[in-house]
Amino acid sequence: MPRDSADSTFIDALSQRFPADMFARAEQSYLEEPRGRWQGAQGFVARPRDTAEVSALVQACSDAGVGIVPYGGGTGLVGGQIAPDGAPETPLILSLERMTRIRDVFPQENVLIAEAGVILANIQTAARDVDRLFPLSLASEGSARIGGLLSTNAGGVNVLRYGNTRDLCLGLEAVMPDGSIWHGLKRLRKDNTGYDLRNLLIGAEGTLGIITAASLKLYPRPAAIGTAVFVIRDAEAALELLSLAKSQLGESISAFELMHKTGLDFLSETLPDVRKPFGDHHPEWMILTDIGLPKGLDPQSALEDLFVAAEAEGIATDAVIAQSEAQRTEFWSVREHIPEANRRIGAVSSHDVSVPLGALPAFIARVRQAIAQVGDFRINCFGHVGDGNLHFNVFPPSGQSRDSYLAETKAIKRLVHDIAHELGGTFSAEHGIGRAKTADLARYGDPTKLAAMRAIKNALDPKGIMNPGAVLP
Amino acid sequence: MPRDSADSTFIDALSQRFPADMFARAEQSYLEEPRGRWQGAQGFVARPRDTAEVSALVQACSDAGVGIVPYGGGTGLVGGQIAPDGAPETPLILSLERMTRIRDVFPQENVLIAEAGVILANIQTAARDVDRLFPLSLASEGSARIGGLLSTNAGGVNVLRYGNTRDLCLGLEAVMPDGSIWHGLKRLRKDNTGYDLRNLLIGAEGTLGIITAASLKLYPRPAAIGTAVFVIRDAEAALELLSLAKSQLGESISAFELMHKTGLDFLSETLPDVRKPFGDHHPEWMILTDIGLPKGLDPQSALEDLFVAAEAEGIATDAVIAQSEAQRTEFWSVREHIPEANRRIGAVSSHDVSVPLGALPAFIARVRQAIAQVGDFRINCFGHVGDGNLHFNVFPPSGQSRDSYLAETKAIKRLVHDIAHELGGTFSAEHGIGRAKTADLARYGDPTKLAAMRAIKNALDPKGIMNPGAVLP
Repeated sequence: MPRDSADSTFIDALSQRFPADMFARAEQSYLEEPRGRWQGAQGFVARPRDTAEVSALVQACSDAGVGIVPYGGGTGLVGGQIAPDGAPETPLILSLERMTRIRDVFPQENVLIAEAGVILANIQTAARDVDRLFPLSLASEGSARIGGLLSTNAGGVNVLRYGNTRDLCLGLEAVMPDGSIWHGLKRLRKDNTGYDLRNLLIGAEGTLGIITAASLKLYPRPAAIGTAVFVIRDAEAALELLSLAKSQLGESISAFELMHKTGLDFLSETLPDVRKPFGDHHPEWMILTDIGLPKGLDPQSALEDLFVAAEAEGIATDAVIAQSEAQRTEFWSVREHIPEANRRIGAVSSHDVSVPLGALPAFIARVRQAIAQVGDFRINCFGHVGDGNLHFNVFPPSGQSRDSYLAETKAIKRLVHDIAHELGGTFSAEHGIGRAKTADLARYGDPTKLAAMRAIKNALDPKGIMNPGAVLP
Repeated sequence: MPRDSADSTFIDALSQRFPADMFARAEQSYLEEPRGRWQGAQGFVARPRDTAEVSALVQACSDAGVGIVPYGGGTGLVGGQIAPDGAPETPLILSLERMTRIRDVFPQENVLIAEAGVILANIQTAARDVDRLFPLSLASEGSARIGGLLSTNAGGVNVLRYGNTRDLCLGLEAVMPDGSIWHGLKRLRKDNTGYDLRNLLIGAEGTLGIITAASLKLYPRPAAIGTAVFVIRDAEAALELLSLAKSQLGESISAFELMHKTGLDFLSETLPDVRKPFGDHHPEWMILTDIGLPKGLDPQSALEDLFVAAEAEGIATDAVIAQSEAQRTEFWSVREHIPEANRRIGAVSSHDVSVPLGALPAFIARVRQAIAQVGDFRINCFGHVGDGNLHFNVFPPSGQSRDSYLAETKAIKRLVHDIAHELGGTFSAEHGIGRAKTADLARYGDPTKLAAMRAIKNALDPKGIMNPGAVLP
């Protein structure tokens, strides 16, 4: 653990060695997280402009035994970017926000090299500019930065087809806990030369080093895209529709999202301007799907064929297929506003679970039943069902406030995570551990894996300065 | 490093605790590698039947400070599976050959769980039996075992579309160097709960633990498959054809292999029964490609369209498109027999390099020129060009034997690897480090990455018993 704070004496000393505008008192924006659950410790932020400065900063912190909290876009949902008030030593917040250069684009190789501070939407645009696709897509793409997305191995809506963030990365440049720089910005599809340091840093949430740049995979843009919302028989039918879609469309399904009536009800209540696919009628269970097809295939008719077959097999009862780009955007707007509607309603407990696909129906049924025994809660179960990943969020009864039910939060969280674990699933599918889920990791983590993680942490960061308190407190 | 040998005293003591047939003197098959380059140390082999036995064996070796060489199918090309004669302590060979159970198949989830000793071809068959595809495919698939394929992160011909072996793995069960078992056989597409131990063990070549089972990704089988051989203008045209194919076919290109006239000449000389696509005419440069399309598209016409466009742009001058499954097999037989023809001719130096795609033409031209200055060698440059991975093999002049030129091997290897490195490439694309390339790793490896690797090795295997001498000697 760190032995000293990034206090004004430390910052004054550093200010002699670095450009004058490198350091500032951390404003409120660095000290709060999207759901307002923690207040960060008052302290300083450093904003280096290049990798050499990051290296020198880390070395200075290492020498002084001062902790570092790497800071990207600040959109993480488990507190990995917030050093909470009350820790014995105040760490330095190291923000990558000034390292926003796209260093290179290689369209022929389908590779783009970006610094850690580039905002995801800007990478998507740079890819589109050379007629390519960078498929990572999630609600916070307008502010999340690629360094943080890699450090947390972010998921999003296109994982089904393109994988998690780690699957989109070919190489890294990173500063290790002693300040040394790993020059690993390879553009190679194959490179079997030693341990996979890249995947070790990806998803380590800044506890093993600081990612400063990455070489990223681009993809051909599908020749044609189609979007539809299917009304399905029940939750189990989601899997049947996925199987049917896979058999008809192979790997062309880019996104496959579950939505529930409760989500649409919440939208009507809190964000009535969001247009919903079936107007005032809110079906119990729906699937929002995107398909991307090669030249020669028509997404409209592919989605029609899928519905005809799904209806014949009793899987789906209704569907709307987007007739225009505007309608596609409208369908997706529903999905993307559900988290905001949830926030406005106020959850008693939110979850980011995944289970093996085959266990999804059992999971939903068992959790609903178990929660019903705790109380009369509303449940909004939605998300990346094609990946087995659900955001299973629990809300107070209609007309009541979450504040009256916070005593139940712990018990609900426990039962949801217990059931996911029993079914071979996980308590954190895409959000990570951060500081919010360290107790869950200790409870559900495999002891052998935890021991290996601790050994690796001690080996690479013996002073414990990298994001202290996160992942392995 | 190990402090004791797996000698008969040690084996006698273990024999009291384990089933009678667990141990045997290692026959010759465990002591040689496919190219006959090393002779292994005489010693003992242990053949456990399950993970508990692997765990107990590893613990016993850890207690005694005896080294372990994990052994899969023995097909590795860099000596990772062979403890060479002459090491101070003789390690125990731990063969996974009895752990051949496919534990489970989940067709709806596209997941298969196999023990480490399952032969790749048997996994392919098990997948086909449930109408799925396990896409890993390489020449040694009839004998290579999945534990070894994972430990070496094997490549093969379908990496372009489906990735390396690591990309096909969802979870692992493994025995760590202290004998503890990591139960990580998850079937989840998303699981962000701590450091990526899975990818750390994959590609570690048995130096950090022993993989005992894996959950593997299956894929839908493409609705229709097509195969063709294109005659291309020159080496540079390979990339142009790849770009064109990607723009026409998106991600439907499964394999994209370069072949050179020299390979066909070698086939005529050593394996005249192998039928070649253009008969006695051996074009200078060819591309063998496989495409797999979703329902509604015809591979025959897709390949015709590709050729028409490629011819119009001066990229390709001729092509044959397989008209039957038999002809597909025939085309692939040419590609698959090239390594055997190479062996019969006898290479002065073989290489497994990759470079960024855009640097391929420069690489081929520079290496040819540099080798011409060393002597009048024949070059067979072939392989997975779609991944930037070439097997660039150098042979003596016609009618002469490799034995007369072995003095040049070191210089040739160095110049090939130097040029690959200068162009941002690697000296080991898919074969790994093993014991053959440890000096290359020390020479070309990034110092920060090497330091991290050593720290991780010491942290997880403090006694240095796991595959001693491999990767980090």
